Amino acid sequence: MVMNKTEALLRMSAEKTECYLRAGFENAEKDLMPLTEAEQYSLLGGGKRIRPFLTFEFCRVLGGKEEAAAPFASAIEMIHTYSLIHDDLPCMDDDTYRRGRLTCHKRFDEATAVLAGDALLTDAFGVAAGNKHVSAEVAREAVLLLSKAAGSHGMVGGQILDMGAEKKQMSGIGELLRLQSLKTGALIRVAAGLGCLAAGKRSDSPEFAAADRYAAGIGLAFQIVDDILDVEGNAEQLGKATGVDAKMNKVTFMSFYTVKEARAYAARLTDEAKSAIAFLPESETLCELADYLLDRKY
Amino acid sequence: MVMNKTEALLRMSAEKTECYLRAGFENAEKDLMPLTEAEQYSLLGGGKRIRPFLTFEFCRVLGGKEEAAAPFASAIEMIHTYSLIHDDLPCMDDDTYRRGRLTCHKRFDEATAVLAGDALLTDAFGVAAGNKHVSAEVAREAVLLLSKAAGSHGMVGGQILDMGAEKKQMSGIGELLRLQSLKTGALIRVAAGLGCLAAGKRSDSPEFAAADRYAAGIGLAFQIVDDILDVEGNAEQLGKATGVDAKMNKVTFMSFYTVKEARAYAARLTDEAKSAIAFLPESETLCELADYLLDRKY
Repeated sequence: MVMNKTEALLRMSAEKTECYLRAGFENAEKDLMPLTEAEQYSLLGGGKRIRPFLTFEFCRVLGGKEEAAAPFASAIEMIHTYSLIHDDLPCMDDDTYRRGRLTCHKRFDEATAVLAGDALLTDAFGVAAGNKHVSAEVAREAVLLLSKAAGSHGMVGGQILDMGAEKKQMSGIGELLRLQSLKTGALIRVAAGLGCLAAGKRSDSPEFAAADRYAAGIGLAFQIVDDILDVEGNAEQLGKATGVDAKMNKVTFMSFYTVKEARAYAARLTDEAKSAIAFLPESETLCELADYLLDRKY
Repeated sequence: MVMNKTEALLRMSAEKTECYLRAGFENAEKDLMPLTEAEQYSLLGGGKRIRPFLTFEFCRVLGGKEEAAAPFASAIEMIHTYSLIHDDLPCMDDDTYRRGRLTCHKRFDEATAVLAGDALLTDAFGVAAGNKHVSAEVAREAVLLLSKAAGSHGMVGGQILDMGAEKKQMSGIGELLRLQSLKTGALIRVAAGLGCLAAGKRSDSPEFAAADRYAAGIGLAFQIVDDILDVEGNAEQLGKATGVDAKMNKVTFMSFYTVKEARAYAARLTDEAKSAIAFLPESETLCELADYLLDRKY
């Protein structure tokens, strides 16, 4: 497969992220190995690393330093990973594979997976607060934003809505939009926002607002494309089964739209996302990322 | 039962803590009710509230304001509660009752319990960072200390050691001491430490060091007394079965000491704890708490 520019940049950014994440385990104590091993297994297992990419890229575009973005990018990826570990648990989605490898609780055991998730989540806040390249005010704001995006009024809240959605019929698209904005949107938005913070742009700046609008747009488009791919994607290319949502009776964007309508919706969101950051210097890479995520086949 | 002074103060402090914790749910969104309900069920379910007591009391003794201690006390109790919810899960201790009521996953379901724990943990960092009565530097330090005490190098690390301890024979008391210092000690110490922070005493101050030594001492004594009570306590008074540790083949302080030796050890730790804070003004209440925890029958 030929790699385009965005793929190459994502790959580079993923390697950089992996490097920073790995460094976090340098002082791991020997007797805590079963925990550290499970954390590393899930955390360093690859993935697109779109969230840290957003953090690094918004920081770069706004003139910040990579070292200031790194702790925030790491914290977000740790939180994302914890959410996947807990999501895969038998009492939740009960998944055996993730990214082509055994899920954490299958590779280790359930108790270790619960604790590895807990540890990643807890340590993430220390990593964010410990960012030495930003002021205490910025570190505090980062922790507040992270907690809000990941907690009961963000990602976890979205997961509860998702559980409810499996049991009952949704009243309309509004409910699905709220679910997605909490479950996946909030963390993607805070990834972009923390990139701005790392570059010295606070949450009341126009740059932060633009990054937030951009991330909200591509985050939602990403989810719509996911739903489309589950309907008409290539299972082999995707690396996972298709038709899962329908089989599970899951409410998705395909419950409300035809493929054509959904594509148009995702394209419009992508355009709006790009417009939101048009005034930022060197925003081409972020615009290309938006297009890349829209056109992806896996 | 006649209540002594310490019991009365603990009761008052517990009510105060409950009040602050309850206020955190005032803006709970209606559609997130299943999550909020589970969080509140576990969080507001009583308990001795020793950790928040330590935060409030060290803050008071050092001349700080209650409002500055409250967010830290709340955050610690939220983290403590999350750890109990996850500890009770079927894949962990598989407990049906906690404080005489159904555990979270029995009252609701397993997925809700996992998520309620995750939400409490995540939101706790926002509550600590959002403390409006301290500077950004102090808020950042509080988050760092909390994360360290609760994460992989603290409480969660201790839980992993505890799981390992159930499988293998411990090499000696040193291993048990390390397990306890992580699993229960770290959070009790940070509860005292954050009380100091709330009163403007940073982690490099002699007051903070004294509070830390005191909390380490009473924390360990508390655990030893717990182990003694499991051997010779009154099940009815305790509100839980005795002889559980032996039945589970659990390594406890009673695996290394006779009851008499264990009592002497706990008494010495209590004395050392009291000595550590003797130079602080108005430290009688904290000394009385140490004695109360040593002499408790439940």
